[in-house]
Amino acid sequence: MSQPYTPTPRTRLVREADRAVYDREAAYRILDEGFLCHVGFVTDGQPFVIPTSYGRKDASLFIHGSAASRMLRTVKESVPVCITVTLLDGLVLARSIFNHSMNYRSVVVLGKATLVDDPAEKLEALRLLSEHIIPGRWADSRQPNERELKATSVLRVPIEEFSAKVRKGPVVDDEEDYSFPTWAGLVPLEMVAGEPIADARLDPKREVPSYAKHYKRKG
Amino acid sequence: MSQPYTPTPRTRLVREADRAVYDREAAYRILDEGFLCHVGFVTDGQPFVIPTSYGRKDASLFIHGSAASRMLRTVKESVPVCITVTLLDGLVLARSIFNHSMNYRSVVVLGKATLVDDPAEKLEALRLLSEHIIPGRWADSRQPNERELKATSVLRVPIEEFSAKVRKGPVVDDEEDYSFPTWAGLVPLEMVAGEPIADARLDPKREVPSYAKHYKRKG
Repeated sequence: MSQPYTPTPRTRLVREADRAVYDREAAYRILDEGFLCHVGFVTDGQPFVIPTSYGRKDASLFIHGSAASRMLRTVKESVPVCITVTLLDGLVLARSIFNHSMNYRSVVVLGKATLVDDPAEKLEALRLLSEHIIPGRWADSRQPNERELKATSVLRVPIEEFSAKVRKGPVVDDEEDYSFPTWAGLVPLEMVAGEPIADARLDPKREVPSYAKHYKRKG
Repeated sequence: MSQPYTPTPRTRLVREADRAVYDREAAYRILDEGFLCHVGFVTDGQPFVIPTSYGRKDASLFIHGSAASRMLRTVKESVPVCITVTLLDGLVLARSIFNHSMNYRSVVVLGKATLVDDPAEKLEALRLLSEHIIPGRWADSRQPNERELKATSVLRVPIEEFSAKVRKGPVVDDEEDYSFPTWAGLVPLEMVAGEPIADARLDPKREVPSYAKHYKRKG
């Protein structure tokens, strides 16, 4: 069921309001198809944007990293962050340069990150993160030990203030340009997985698990 | 020729220094292979991270957008921005959860954006942007008119303070984990273009240009 969501002045789209999606379930679908986000935070007035993976459960995003990283050091002080996820679906080749565009789906989440301190919650957040990227892998791997858990920080960002933006469908040209003598249309783009490459030190008899063999972005 | 570059305290990698690349030409190769960046800027203490396309010429990055957008309105006041480009190359499935990783190449540029005001420079920056995304397309398209140029803002960000980070190659597990009974290896990931889809209003006799038919990320 779709839950209504009222954008704040900070997340209401200023431009191209027809591309705005304020539907929580639609935003979740985008967040669940991607697994790479760009996290923005501010240090001494300078914005930083760092790529990292994430997981989601209900209205929470989880990111993780070394407890020693600049991002985690900054962000765990409960400072404002922005988490953006972008899925690129294709190039839109219009007749006019001006109407060229991209088909994409993106979500921007504004919020404050908080440290996940409780050991059981932290382990569960790491499991969510792993399962978000490649479902099935967690159970097949050597589980984190205490030292590793200590070296890892996990942050939770609530999905409260957000906006999603979607551009899909065909070229839109100005009426007088439809007769312009050039090709126009879409070039679809997709992230695809290649054949898995077994580690050199792996027992050659060990089979490739299906989650690696048939890896696909969800959605 | 590779130009040496000395990182500042803000761009020196705090963590995983072995993944750091401070070589300007290496950073340019990453920037030239991608075409989607995430721009970070700050409004009233809140970071925003917005996806957009970009172009590069020498030590300048160019981004563009509607003169009315929140990003362009904020950023053209010569405020600090961060432009991050991330190319995802694959998943790294280690034996331990802790050593799971991703192969990727990323560049983070810190700087101040300035508005490209001169009409000739603005047009040239838009051409660079277009050619960066899909080389050959500019000349085939209906060129921007005065109204369209006026509605578009172009910003230049100098590539002066930057860092690049690269993780490539095989799984690295702790020595005692190599006997752990699970598959380990790489799942390569690549952005690929599908068959171009001609616009419904296109003359069916018009052939698909090779830049659309054989679209490939450069590099």
